[in-house]
Amino acid sequence: MTVNDPSNTPSGMSPSGAPTALGSGAEFDIIRSIWSRLGARGANLGDDCAIVEVGGVRLAISSDLTLEDTHFRRGWLAPGALGWRAATAALSDLAAVAATPKGILISLGLSPELPADWAGELMSGVGEAAAEVGAMVWGGDVVRNDRIVIDAIVIGAFEADPVLRAGARAGDLLAVTGRLGGARAALEDLLGGRSPDVTAMERFTRPRARIAHAQWLRDRGARAMIDVSDGLVADAEHLAAASGLAAVIDRELIPLHPAAADSAMAASSGEEYELLVALPGDLAPTLVEPFAESFALPLTVVGVMEAGQGVTIRDHGHVVAESGRFSHF
Amino acid sequence: MTVNDPSNTPSGMSPSGAPTALGSGAEFDIIRSIWSRLGARGANLGDDCAIVEVGGVRLAISSDLTLEDTHFRRGWLAPGALGWRAATAALSDLAAVAATPKGILISLGLSPELPADWAGELMSGVGEAAAEVGAMVWGGDVVRNDRIVIDAIVIGAFEADPVLRAGARAGDLLAVTGRLGGARAALEDLLGGRSPDVTAMERFTRPRARIAHAQWLRDRGARAMIDVSDGLVADAEHLAAASGLAAVIDRELIPLHPAAADSAMAASSGEEYELLVALPGDLAPTLVEPFAESFALPLTVVGVMEAGQGVTIRDHGHVVAESGRFSHF
Repeated sequence: MTVNDPSNTPSGMSPSGAPTALGSGAEFDIIRSIWSRLGARGANLGDDCAIVEVGGVRLAISSDLTLEDTHFRRGWLAPGALGWRAATAALSDLAAVAATPKGILISLGLSPELPADWAGELMSGVGEAAAEVGAMVWGGDVVRNDRIVIDAIVIGAFEADPVLRAGARAGDLLAVTGRLGGARAALEDLLGGRSPDVTAMERFTRPRARIAHAQWLRDRGARAMIDVSDGLVADAEHLAAASGLAAVIDRELIPLHPAAADSAMAASSGEEYELLVALPGDLAPTLVEPFAESFALPLTVVGVMEAGQGVTIRDHGHVVAESGRFSHF
Repeated sequence: MTVNDPSNTPSGMSPSGAPTALGSGAEFDIIRSIWSRLGARGANLGDDCAIVEVGGVRLAISSDLTLEDTHFRRGWLAPGALGWRAATAALSDLAAVAATPKGILISLGLSPELPADWAGELMSGVGEAAAEVGAMVWGGDVVRNDRIVIDAIVIGAFEADPVLRAGARAGDLLAVTGRLGGARAALEDLLGGRSPDVTAMERFTRPRARIAHAQWLRDRGARAMIDVSDGLVADAEHLAAASGLAAVIDRELIPLHPAAADSAMAASSGEEYELLVALPGDLAPTLVEPFAESFALPLTVVGVMEAGQGVTIRDHGHVVAESGRFSHF
């Protein structure tokens, strides 16, 4: 269950705006209104995936809607990259609970103005993203529409218990995979009509769902996890809220993508699809090196879970911002 | 897997147009281009559902995209009816293979102009349609968009082998549930700015997924099945193509909804969500009465499967139209 409120700028990440937090303002009203109507029929609504049991098998299911002019503009991305990105956004929800992807369906709204092979190229990108994580493309729906609509639906299974947002304990350390800010740096350049840095554009066009990384962390004691889709701070807030705790982030520790202007950009960059994980305090430092060796990707401790609520940002130990007042940090 | 080509009129059913057949023209090119890119990774692409195995359990999965101005116009339907309809369109794909619905996810694109409770009302309609067939609402995605996007994703399980489109044999009789043409009569009135007949509007706003009916027919020997989403003739063509046979339909036998102008309207009325089923020739006549008694709904023999291909329409034994030339029958 994800909520984006991009208003009129793509990706929910207006260059000057603060990260949009789930649970705040109008978005929460919509969601509350929706789920209150469902009574007891809804399940696992707080997590990235619905986790359900069918015929004795536990499944993770998630859908992720990508809309032209809301999430991207035509011309920004080749159709193959668009397909890869849409599929990865949904697959990343499976990574967040340490599920194993099995299959993907794609519902497409396609404009008749598109070249004949456009949909084929898009599905080729979907197929590549699926193959990268061992999943199959199972089918979908195609409807004509003037603007492009892509809904990616993914289904995964579990080889062990899922890792949820709610499992963090006070004293756990928060760690993040990869380096943050590249996706947003590319988006800002695209919105500004500039040519993005090549490595930043790679983060925008070819993000990776951290499936194997999530299972590695689960097998070594991860207590709570979420994927960085809304931005490090916003997603830390979701994890903290679900766990009934506060998240404290040390901004000087945030691993920056080379194209990120500063830690504020890195902390608010959405659609990174890295993992934010809560690990027992004594365990986290011992995992950093083996993780980097296994995946050629950094795992960086960026903060700690404490009693309280919301997110606090520190700089070398001094509090510089708290929940709801991030726009100026 | 469904394909709609409504061009600029809602529902793929322009009042004067012929039914749109899957496998003809531009739509087929799109689909062929899409699936050709997927190599061996796609599965069961010809049927209404993807039928897949996860963890030893066989699942039916389908997605159905409903788009404002393509499938409906704002103001035609209350949000609850829109939710019911979108959910039922997807649930009907599960009926087509005689699966048992387990859960539904809804991806929503919502316009900020909508009243605060609009999404809640819509999801209430989704929840009612799910509850009607014993399914749960599992979650979804919400994104702001200027026009309404609803993708309904359904997952079902099997208590027995699925009934596919491909199982018909020469000599099987074709039967249809319910009475056809009401959905199209309502649509034509809505497009023409007239007030639809109440019972026709009920067919448009509150269609039913024939879940129990499909399982009843499966348990009694149904060989092939499809739901009437594109129209009786178009869907008969899909079933015939999958089975490698021709379908012959006797138009005087088509059961008409009271609001249907004639058999041509009934035969091309899409989104009816009734079942078209191929039954062994000696069996079909014996099921008509027990079916009607069980469900208070008619089961009507409308034609026969023969060697050949495409669809032939007869009137009292005389051929009046053949595949590709339905627009004047």
